[in-house]
Amino acid sequence: IMSKLPNVTTSIFTVMSKMAAEYNAINLSQGFPNFPVDEKLTDIVARLAKENVHQYTPVTGYPPLMNQITKLLFNSYKRSVNPDIELLVTAGATQGIFTSILALIKENDEVIMLDPSFDSYESPILLCKAKPIRIALNDDYTPNWEIIEKACSIKTRMIIINNPHNPTGKILSDSDFIQLEKLLSKYPDLLVLSDEVYEYITYEEKHISAHTKSFLLDRCIMVSSFGKSFHITGWKIGYTVAPEHLMIEIKKVHQFLVFSVNSISQIALSEYLNIVDTNLLGKFYQEKRDYFQKLLQNSRFELKPCEGTYFQVASYANISNEDDVTFCKNLIINHGVAAIPISTFYSDHKDQKLIRFCFAKDDSTLESAAKKLCEI
Amino acid sequence: IMSKLPNVTTSIFTVMSKMAAEYNAINLSQGFPNFPVDEKLTDIVARLAKENVHQYTPVTGYPPLMNQITKLLFNSYKRSVNPDIELLVTAGATQGIFTSILALIKENDEVIMLDPSFDSYESPILLCKAKPIRIALNDDYTPNWEIIEKACSIKTRMIIINNPHNPTGKILSDSDFIQLEKLLSKYPDLLVLSDEVYEYITYEEKHISAHTKSFLLDRCIMVSSFGKSFHITGWKIGYTVAPEHLMIEIKKVHQFLVFSVNSISQIALSEYLNIVDTNLLGKFYQEKRDYFQKLLQNSRFELKPCEGTYFQVASYANISNEDDVTFCKNLIINHGVAAIPISTFYSDHKDQKLIRFCFAKDDSTLESAAKKLCEI
Ligand SMILES: CSCCC(=O)C(=O)O
Ligand SMILES: CSCCC(=O)C(=O)O
Repeated sequence: IMSKLPNVTTSIFTVMSKMAAEYNAINLSQGFPNFPVDEKLTDIVARLAKENVHQYTPVTGYPPLMNQITKLLFNSYKRSVNPDIELLVTAGATQGIFTSILALIKENDEVIMLDPSFDSYESPILLCKAKPIRIALNDDYTPNWEIIEKACSIKTRMIIINNPHNPTGKILSDSDFIQLEKLLSKYPDLLVLSDEVYEYITYEEKHISAHTKSFLLDRCIMVSSFGKSFHITGWKIGYTVAPEHLMIEIKKVHQFLVFSVNSISQIALSEYLNIVDTNLLGKFYQEKRDYFQKLLQNSRFELKPCEGTYFQVASYANISNEDDVTFCKNLIINHGVAAIPISTFYSDHKDQKLIRFCFAKDDSTLESAAKKLCEI
Repeated sequence: IMSKLPNVTTSIFTVMSKMAAEYNAINLSQGFPNFPVDEKLTDIVARLAKENVHQYTPVTGYPPLMNQITKLLFNSYKRSVNPDIELLVTAGATQGIFTSILALIKENDEVIMLDPSFDSYESPILLCKAKPIRIALNDDYTPNWEIIEKACSIKTRMIIINNPHNPTGKILSDSDFIQLEKLLSKYPDLLVLSDEVYEYITYEEKHISAHTKSFLLDRCIMVSSFGKSFHITGWKIGYTVAPEHLMIEIKKVHQFLVFSVNSISQIALSEYLNIVDTNLLGKFYQEKRDYFQKLLQNSRFELKPCEGTYFQVASYANISNEDDVTFCKNLIINHGVAAIPISTFYSDHKDQKLIRFCFAKDDSTLESAAKKLCEI
């Protein structure tokens, strides 16, 4: 059989997590927290299990959850969403991204992705027989709007932004949005897919959501997830917001792609959103980041700035000349710590001697990992 | 924006369930049980909620669940599956079907569907720019293998079978499989997608799974779900079984379509499969079917045979001349019972004065519905 995705291999997150388990290494590779989930949320699940929560929810989502998401968007961004028209609950942000691309991108369309780029954007583009146009971010991980504009033509159908950005932790600035607005004014049919799964995990600078920009409202698909915000990456509950003319098409695909999404998780979240404060998350992870950075202060790794997400990028150029994939494998085997090589986020696998650590771990895990990393 | 699915509207299941709620009608339309879930299963969920079950499971599924599914397939069909190679846990059977079609079907391929046909097969085919070839079943809902063979050519890439069959409750016989084998022997590249979500819900005749036919093993994708078997349609946990050369491609798409599937549901099912007996389900629903048929004995509806699934097809030709969609709407408005019009399962919307009732309801619901239906 001829593959439709000949270049796809096992995701780097799977490869590294598996290898970490094999070598009993501390797993700072794949991004997931090892904190306990808020007792208030697990209490809700335990209670709901015995209630009538086990049959299909509606295709677009459990209505009380959709109302709570609407409130959350208003409280966070002063954005008024019509939940019946502009909102969709998905099986994680990944499904929101895949479904949106499949619904909106056609053969020969071009889609701009900014490298380093999360690994789930490219395959749905290829499955649409469209063309991913991968443009490197600047060295400081800001978008190079000049190069992006040069790459645009009437063929360009979508630009994917990831804000806060995985793996670099960079967030988009007001000036970035001004440049984006200028670009979009020249291309009235250009859509923006904004992956904001780390929307509540930013530090010194506040996250600027696509929702806060009126020029984006009629052409932006915003995708997010509760996995990162509430330490429940396994639940796979996310949401997608888009204007009506786009959401109609996204819902059509969604209806046949999953029909509906896990009921008990949706119902639990609809209750929890009533009592949780998403504003505490940034502070929580800022302390984690600061602690992890302090622990690595005397290591030979050079730490890059981290404005958001729970990822810390580090250079090992002072330590080794190995390419980053080899370095990560040896880091597991010889030093018992797993990380992600940054080259895997580039289409050309550009090796810059950079790796990514996930610091969404309890202090003792970070301490054990840092101890090993400082011995190198 | 030009739609990629211009003919898709809201699914008939959503339309009818919504209308049933509006008019406070008894909802025998969309297929979901109103029984309580087995306490043993809900106890497991309630306990797990407080445990460490909330982060990503592996992309292909939670390994202990995959082992349990392997055991189940062996106990049910004497089929030895290698869980690492041939098995994938999905967000419901719908996602398994969508993912398989997207991974394996290419532009201009032809895919045979047998009408009446479940509504989720066509859209993924169209999204692949392939061509659905819809062939009507015989009047007794057996496949017409002669016509199917005439429709086949080297362009035919897949034939979709649904066994037991929604909406007709028909199951495939040994003779059907003999004819299928003959057909496949002429087309070495023809694949079979076997939707067996009602695999444990059959009555007088035993269900013949695609797994029990060795000629299918190297070219069949079997899709099933726990939603129907354990009264948990809201959980959206299913599984797909396929030979390695096909599963490699299916997993590639799955990895970027959902990444992984709801963790707590998977973990709960892995425990529950150890203690549940799927063989009791057929007897349970057979009693339901017999009771529902008895309750409607003195109605003016003419009941069709039902060999499996929890659906009963009925003719209202003696009652009204309305087309079946109109009849179903009026049935809700005037008589307080919701059903599904069978024409919506045909590409040409052929009206045969047939509607489908779901009898997966407690006795008092069936009694109230039957009372209303007998008054017509
Ligand atoms: C869905 S992929 C695994 C987690 C993740 O987002 C990451 O590690 O970058
Ligand atoms: C996933 S669709 C709703 C239930 C169903 O399968 C049916 O009613 O036929």
